Amino acid sequence: MNWINNQAATFYSVYRDAALKRQAVLTKPPGSLGQLEALAVWLAERQGSETPTVEKVWISVFAADHGVMAEQVSAFPQAVTGEMIRNFAGGGAAISVLARALDARLEVMNLGVVNDPGDISGVVNAQIAEQTGNMAKESAMSEDQLTEAMQRGAQAAERAHAGHTQLYICGDMGIGNTTSAAALACAYLGLAPEKLVGPGTGLDTEGVAHKARVVQRALSVNAAQLTSAQGILQSLGGFEIAAMSAAMIRSAQFGRPVLIDGFISSVAALAATRINPSVRDWLHFSHRSAEPGHAVVLDAMQAETVLDLGMRLGEASGAAVAVPLFRMACALHNQMATFTEAGVSEG
Amino acid sequence: MNWINNQAATFYSVYRDAALKRQAVLTKPPGSLGQLEALAVWLAERQGSETPTVEKVWISVFAADHGVMAEQVSAFPQAVTGEMIRNFAGGGAAISVLARALDARLEVMNLGVVNDPGDISGVVNAQIAEQTGNMAKESAMSEDQLTEAMQRGAQAAERAHAGHTQLYICGDMGIGNTTSAAALACAYLGLAPEKLVGPGTGLDTEGVAHKARVVQRALSVNAAQLTSAQGILQSLGGFEIAAMSAAMIRSAQFGRPVLIDGFISSVAALAATRINPSVRDWLHFSHRSAEPGHAVVLDAMQAETVLDLGMRLGEASGAAVAVPLFRMACALHNQMATFTEAGVSEG
Repeated sequence: MNWINNQAATFYSVYRDAALKRQAVLTKPPGSLGQLEALAVWLAERQGSETPTVEKVWISVFAADHGVMAEQVSAFPQAVTGEMIRNFAGGGAAISVLARALDARLEVMNLGVVNDPGDISGVVNAQIAEQTGNMAKESAMSEDQLTEAMQRGAQAAERAHAGHTQLYICGDMGIGNTTSAAALACAYLGLAPEKLVGPGTGLDTEGVAHKARVVQRALSVNAAQLTSAQGILQSLGGFEIAAMSAAMIRSAQFGRPVLIDGFISSVAALAATRINPSVRDWLHFSHRSAEPGHAVVLDAMQAETVLDLGMRLGEASGAAVAVPLFRMACALHNQMATFTEAGVSEG
Repeated sequence: MNWINNQAATFYSVYRDAALKRQAVLTKPPGSLGQLEALAVWLAERQGSETPTVEKVWISVFAADHGVMAEQVSAFPQAVTGEMIRNFAGGGAAISVLARALDARLEVMNLGVVNDPGDISGVVNAQIAEQTGNMAKESAMSEDQLTEAMQRGAQAAERAHAGHTQLYICGDMGIGNTTSAAALACAYLGLAPEKLVGPGTGLDTEGVAHKARVVQRALSVNAAQLTSAQGILQSLGGFEIAAMSAAMIRSAQFGRPVLIDGFISSVAALAATRINPSVRDWLHFSHRSAEPGHAVVLDAMQAETVLDLGMRLGEASGAAVAVPLFRMACALHNQMATFTEAGVSEG
């Protein structure tokens, strides 16, 4: 699959230099717009543009169920994944509201749920299986299933590219997927479950301890397969997480910058960068989730975020909330007057 | 002046309770939208509405010069204050760009600058004097000047109220005003200059040390007048800071919530709450400035912020950047489906 082995796009250092030069002569003390200056420069470099812009935003939400739910690892019932697909399409979910507010394109992909909502307008029906295997007892996916999930993710990024997205966002829905994400992060980072397992949608202390034991079991059962980046993803991943990883890789290969959401998305980004390290330069991280494992994953990728609002919803919601900051960073960069233009004295 | 002695408006606990109840039944794990949930509840309580909204935003930017500039306390020349008034009106300043992006009303008030730009369309000419007195040698304002500055601030809030603003923002422009703000914070909080003085627009270490000595001198010279909240504001304030304090008080009396910008604005808010403590409940703080004294002032008011982007520009720019978060918080609160409406199972 050359969409995995190919390098990400190269970017435009000449536009970075021009953007830095422009930021230095806009009518403000140098550096006084803080991270907003860095965002504009980051986009200019990747879009190869003197006037970076993120008016066109494409959000892919991948939904899938997890076999590990047989181990009772979530505060919500598994039926919710399928129910939420209907809610995404109906416009009532958080990401539906945010996509409307941002005038962003929202595409929902059903990669396989137990409570199948059937054909719904606005949902891409791309079921691989009802759910993954229970990673506490077996590999979550077969090799073919991993390939299918990644191909569907890559195809989503291809549609976003064809739609001329200026900023690509992936989101997740899958009851039980913080368990899968925690296991993946443990395997990629070589850390104990206690460092990565958290309450997810709302487990109590005993629930979190149980979840950590389930993750430990998954790591033991699958130990022989945890020797490659793709082997880890196949053994412990969800369909939606594998799809997100491939979508991020594909977007980076197209030279489309990707804005990463919270814990699940960041673990998908971690998997993507382990599969193809050149992808990292195309990822910006949006927010720091309240899920405790997120900080560990962000640190491992030396990732800064622009927001820290205590969100922990997934669905790409945290990334969506950060989009206006990128838009305002662009507006400031493109529209502010220089000292010379405005006749303002420099310091 | 009854706009100082009157209490702030009371707010609507019934709408707070209803908003909390609604947040608990929207299709998301309870609490998973983090601070966005709190923002919606905060607004609902103050707007007395089941559907809080911040489409109408009014931004008052107050510009004024500081006599303490005779002590060389800034990296920028004093002429910049007047030059920036022209830039605000011309649309090239950061706050001009942000106000356009937000479709917010921007009103600029010239309260007195050395380099007077004269009559400019879009600028309220409300000069009190060319600049304040040099607080390192005398009181910054006479009693009459303080009254004038506060009246102009109150009038600005009255125009915002008449314009049906749903969120009121004050901003500042005044070369040298971090020196004034640091002195005010020292006096209100009983702290040494070293705790509050920072680089402002870009002083080096020696410049910061010199600025701290100037603030110490201002505190000593004016010691006899630093016994009341208004005495402190008169002795150490700038026209723009006094105007902002009064604008915040007046807005709170009208029951219009106020979004506070960075260091200067927060010191104005501190003054406002010392003059009229009931104002505090109407203030939300937007961002954590890179100016080191800001953290001290925020702590003193037990203020949480929604953003921490390393900004330090003033002009209301940090508050403006936070507005989309309030708007998205409202959209989520008002438009998300409940579990019942969407047929989604609860946890």
